[in-house]
Amino acid sequence: MPTIVVEVMPKAVLLDPQGKAVTGALHRLGKSNISEVRIGKRFEVTVVEVTPEVLAEVQALAEDIFSNQVIEDVVSVTAV
Amino acid sequence: MPTIVVEVMPKAVLLDPQGKAVTGALHRLGKSNISEVRIGKRFEVTVVEVTPEVLAEVQALAEDIFSNQVIEDVVSVTAV
Repeated sequence: MPTIVVEVMPKAVLLDPQGKAVTGALHRLGKSNISEVRIGKRFEVTVVEVTPEVLAEVQALAEDIFSNQVIEDVVSVTAV
Repeated sequence: MPTIVVEVMPKAVLLDPQGKAVTGALHRLGKSNISEVRIGKRFEVTVVEVTPEVLAEVQALAEDIFSNQVIEDVVSVTAV
């Protein structure tokens, strides 16, 4: 069955504590090529079929349920 | 600065409790178009520059640090 991938990231202007912790650990490990890490969520939504209506439904779900619009942004909703 | 996106998902053969919980909630909300939801992680890694060596380094980090290879798979490592 077809899958729609929804990607959600913390808003860029907000502090990402998880990301900061990983970034600090990587710097302590000497990974100097890496300047920052931000961590978000990835949803694989298996649907019956991909139609414009289903895509719109998943987009609405991404904004209402899969993300907290106060602190997160829906980066993409893509049928794969 | 350039960004490399790392996507990590739970192994398909394993139970994804978070995903199951969200799937159940969506079905109770009457979202019958959606048969399953699986939830993983998305990392945005900001690097100094994207070279084959840096990509290989992030690939290794994805497998060693960003994911638990026992229960998760690295789905993709992509420079964006």
